[in-house]
Amino acid sequence: MRFDIITVLPGLLDSPFAHSILQRAQQKGLVDIHVHNLRDYATNKHKSVDDYPYGGGSGMVMQIEPFAACIEKLQAERQYDEVIYMTPDGETLNQEIANVLSSIENVIILCGHYKGIDQRIRDVFVTKEISVGDYVLSGGELPAAILVDAVVRLIPGVLSDETSALSDSFQDGLLDAPIYTRPAEWRGHRIPEVLLSGHEAKIAAWRYEQQLKRTEERRPDLLND
Amino acid sequence: MRFDIITVLPGLLDSPFAHSILQRAQQKGLVDIHVHNLRDYATNKHKSVDDYPYGGGSGMVMQIEPFAACIEKLQAERQYDEVIYMTPDGETLNQEIANVLSSIENVIILCGHYKGIDQRIRDVFVTKEISVGDYVLSGGELPAAILVDAVVRLIPGVLSDETSALSDSFQDGLLDAPIYTRPAEWRGHRIPEVLLSGHEAKIAAWRYEQQLKRTEERRPDLLND
Repeated sequence: MRFDIITVLPGLLDSPFAHSILQRAQQKGLVDIHVHNLRDYATNKHKSVDDYPYGGGSGMVMQIEPFAACIEKLQAERQYDEVIYMTPDGETLNQEIANVLSSIENVIILCGHYKGIDQRIRDVFVTKEISVGDYVLSGGELPAAILVDAVVRLIPGVLSDETSALSDSFQDGLLDAPIYTRPAEWRGHRIPEVLLSGHEAKIAAWRYEQQLKRTEERRPDLLND
Repeated sequence: MRFDIITVLPGLLDSPFAHSILQRAQQKGLVDIHVHNLRDYATNKHKSVDDYPYGGGSGMVMQIEPFAACIEKLQAERQYDEVIYMTPDGETLNQEIANVLSSIENVIILCGHYKGIDQRIRDVFVTKEISVGDYVLSGGELPAAILVDAVVRLIPGVLSDETSALSDSFQDGLLDAPIYTRPAEWRGHRIPEVLLSGHEAKIAAWRYEQQLKRTEERRPDLLND
């Protein structure tokens, strides 16, 4: 799978893509991540990519031409399945959307900054708008990194232990059960006895019960879906 | 405001905190961000901080002792208002939570990795559990960066133009109106005429109408709250 991310702050994405699972997925050749500096596509001599909003108001608006130039250059090189704009008014990302995206080939991700991007970029080029949650951030870079991370770990071969992804929260519609490791007792806090029983069926039953209980307490909305 | 972030991948957070608004907030002395390497608090000679889960199953579990040592060292140095664990089964982050957190002084953020952290860390130390959304990620580092970004931009003095934060999506319970900048016409796509009218009241009315329309179409749930 190939990601082309267009941003005014390419450096912000250096370290998130250079560690852990995202680094290994690239090293294994399962994922290609290309970060493009929008300023390289600026058409004016000051390399600016934003301008004042029509109709007045605070904040700058990212112009259509640099995005158009970068997107059209990429689209001339290969076919893209989606052009995604990260925006708080997009469809809210969830595990189901991540699952669907993990099966496509090539995707362009646009990161907004300042007040946002000219609406015509959205009208003309964008095929999908995704929000990572109901909060406002400084730009679309961290949301792009979140999206890439959520999607890449679902690509077969990326996680060394595939069952680990399958038992994660949300993957089966329930939150995870509590987990424990050594020591069995720490300052008087003991782990649940059942986990020391060695009785696989009892442990599985306890975990399922804990998953249901935690989901009922914390996220009853997940049970109604 | 001071953030102490505890992680096994401190390097992953290098670039997100070194750019844009988060960088400037630190330079202005409005925010202090300290990233702590959990491995520095490992008690065994291999510097490992995780172990197998009790009761079996896939994935490693982060041990209680290194987190306890790091948290208690910090708490001996100053008072913390919250110890936050970033986890998909926590309370879902929204703009209201970000607003509340932007008024506190000191916060510790724990980033999980692998399968998660020993439940007793949550029981004993954690005061608040926050999720950035209903999807699974490789670790709590990107969620911690998201939380810091969402909170820091609400601290007075961080944004140069404070009205910009106030008119963002969610801050008034509505999504933003479409925005446009030059050129007024691009390959036949013209901006709405009202924005060229110079009539402030008409423009404000159009924007409010667009906000309502977009919120009704995309996020009717926001109107019912």
